[in-house]
Amino acid sequence: SRSIRLAVIPGDGIGQEVVAQGLKVLSAALPQDVKLETRSYDLGARRWHATGDTLPDADLESLKDHDAILLGAIGDPSVPSGVLERGLLLKLRFAFDHYVNLRPSKLFPNTPSPLAGRPDIDFVVVREGTEGPYVGNGGSMRTGTPDEVATEVSLNTAHGVERVVRDAYERANARPRKKLTLVHKNNVLVHAGHLWKNIFDRVGQEYPEVATDYLHVDAATIFFVTQPERFDVIVTDNLFGDILTDLAAAVTGGIGLAASGNINPSGAFPSMFEPVHGSAPDIAGTGKADPTATVLSVALLLSHLGYGDEAARIETAVASDLAERDAAAPRTTDEIGDALAARVSG
Amino acid sequence: SRSIRLAVIPGDGIGQEVVAQGLKVLSAALPQDVKLETRSYDLGARRWHATGDTLPDADLESLKDHDAILLGAIGDPSVPSGVLERGLLLKLRFAFDHYVNLRPSKLFPNTPSPLAGRPDIDFVVVREGTEGPYVGNGGSMRTGTPDEVATEVSLNTAHGVERVVRDAYERANARPRKKLTLVHKNNVLVHAGHLWKNIFDRVGQEYPEVATDYLHVDAATIFFVTQPERFDVIVTDNLFGDILTDLAAAVTGGIGLAASGNINPSGAFPSMFEPVHGSAPDIAGTGKADPTATVLSVALLLSHLGYGDEAARIETAVASDLAERDAAAPRTTDEIGDALAARVSG
Ligand SMILES: CC(C)[C@H](C(=O)O)[C@@H](O)C(=O)O
Ligand SMILES: CC(C)[C@H](C(=O)O)[C@@H](O)C(=O)O
Repeated sequence: SRSIRLAVIPGDGIGQEVVAQGLKVLSAALPQDVKLETRSYDLGARRWHATGDTLPDADLESLKDHDAILLGAIGDPSVPSGVLERGLLLKLRFAFDHYVNLRPSKLFPNTPSPLAGRPDIDFVVVREGTEGPYVGNGGSMRTGTPDEVATEVSLNTAHGVERVVRDAYERANARPRKKLTLVHKNNVLVHAGHLWKNIFDRVGQEYPEVATDYLHVDAATIFFVTQPERFDVIVTDNLFGDILTDLAAAVTGGIGLAASGNINPSGAFPSMFEPVHGSAPDIAGTGKADPTATVLSVALLLSHLGYGDEAARIETAVASDLAERDAAAPRTTDEIGDALAARVSG
Repeated sequence: SRSIRLAVIPGDGIGQEVVAQGLKVLSAALPQDVKLETRSYDLGARRWHATGDTLPDADLESLKDHDAILLGAIGDPSVPSGVLERGLLLKLRFAFDHYVNLRPSKLFPNTPSPLAGRPDIDFVVVREGTEGPYVGNGGSMRTGTPDEVATEVSLNTAHGVERVVRDAYERANARPRKKLTLVHKNNVLVHAGHLWKNIFDRVGQEYPEVATDYLHVDAATIFFVTQPERFDVIVTDNLFGDILTDLAAAVTGGIGLAASGNINPSGAFPSMFEPVHGSAPDIAGTGKADPTATVLSVALLLSHLGYGDEAARIETAVASDLAERDAAAPRTTDEIGDALAARVSG
């Protein structure tokens, strides 16, 4: 009989609440014969305050022993900026070589959009997850003095760029529109930019059916708000992908709906699925958090583990739920989770 | 009698056309007793193709001998990406220590916005112009091989950050709302980010009347489309500023209206004013380019040189022209320039 060994990192703030709904919907979606084993990890602000640990080796080791990880949200104002991000979230992405940070953006019917005219938005950002300005290669000297110098180094390798570019071509090739856009800033960041562009062009020769395009990151933000329907699959570097996917979430109904997968396509390490939103400490415990982004992340998780039908059922449930939402009658986190679970099992 | 010695770099594509209108409006706006001397520099794609030069020392030297520079647009698809950007535009910004890259964003009445509900947008981005990921400190090894490594280094100094942060506080303090938002990514780029945040907080103590806020760059893009009215003055690094100001232009009626000033507040070198848009080779010569961004850049130029009343007259002329625009009856570049010049002199 089949089984899924799932590691769960609820994290901080609303992380706990949304993950509970994600698990609820996951259980509802899974076929009867699939055994779901979950193990929860106490990682995040509470643990750091109690022990000073962000992600001890023992936890990292034991996390490896899972088919996938579901993460809620990391971060709290009581912890200095960067400690949990670098010591936990990014450490996981780097240690488990999550080089494909997959972030679909779709404007569902009946979902409010800040864009007039409600364009037809349905694209996927393939954000590089293990290189670029995120590597943590930087430092400062004469820190705190008027002569301080601080650096941040963006590291980019042909190996790292080629594998994510190839993944993006595969995804574009499998979609009806077959269009792939590279976003970078190769007129200023010429070394990293030319590496990306050269590999993008070379790998593209293996995908003659995929139409390609290149945009500077600044120009891309313009099209996100004036012509988002032009995008199908986007491939971009770690930092540009971070910025673009928050903007993409904003134009498709908000961060409460944006799902993501930190994927290691080789399967050497577990992939990790998480909503794009943060821990939102201001609404933690109020029942106002929308668990939909986590539920859609669970769909990505299922799809990654080969449960394509179940993933599709969750997406359909979300689409129907959104279609019937009434802005004048907001529901609690729990109520939305219940509604989605009911639709998925029904 | 007074005089302005203006260097003009029309550049590529629509650069020529929009600069011609900018000069037309400048002449119309200037008081009779001010003598305007212009000298035009042939810099850009044509010159590079002809001579291989982007910005020879002799030109750089002679440019210094001016009160200000008006630039159209730089860049052409026939020139490899980065050559003119790094060799001309950025070289000017760095050589003339244009550390305040000033980019106002205002949604004028009757101007189309991609945002539903047309929020009230009126903010200024103070983009650092001489540091960060733009310094050109990077390289690649094993270039073109499967083992290539490419780097880009962001360099940040207390000196460079403090002067631009201080400028931004001054601007915020002089505006009615007195609000300054720092945008960075200090949870990931911890070294540069903490340098920025520490200086922002410290300098802020000298401006007790200015309300401050901090946003990560990804979150800032969300607010640009969902709540742009929350911004008054924004201060940010060179790359984040590049990205955010294109997005800001997009939500305030498009890149055809976005002006900028590359300012050296000390006056040691001439400041340079340019529209945010590029050379748009696809519409060059068609008369479709909107010269308004250049005209508004001329207003920034006048204001910088102490002609505040004349600058205000140009802004009023632009606002009235936009208010009466009829999308069904588009005008040529020249016609818009004429109309603005007439309003300014009238
Ligand atoms: C919390 C932060 C480190 C993270 C990132 O920058 O990648 C977040 O913004 C995201 O997009 O997942
Ligand atoms: C052309 C390019 C080098 C430039 C920049 O990145 O600064 C442009 O995008 C701008 O914003 O002025």
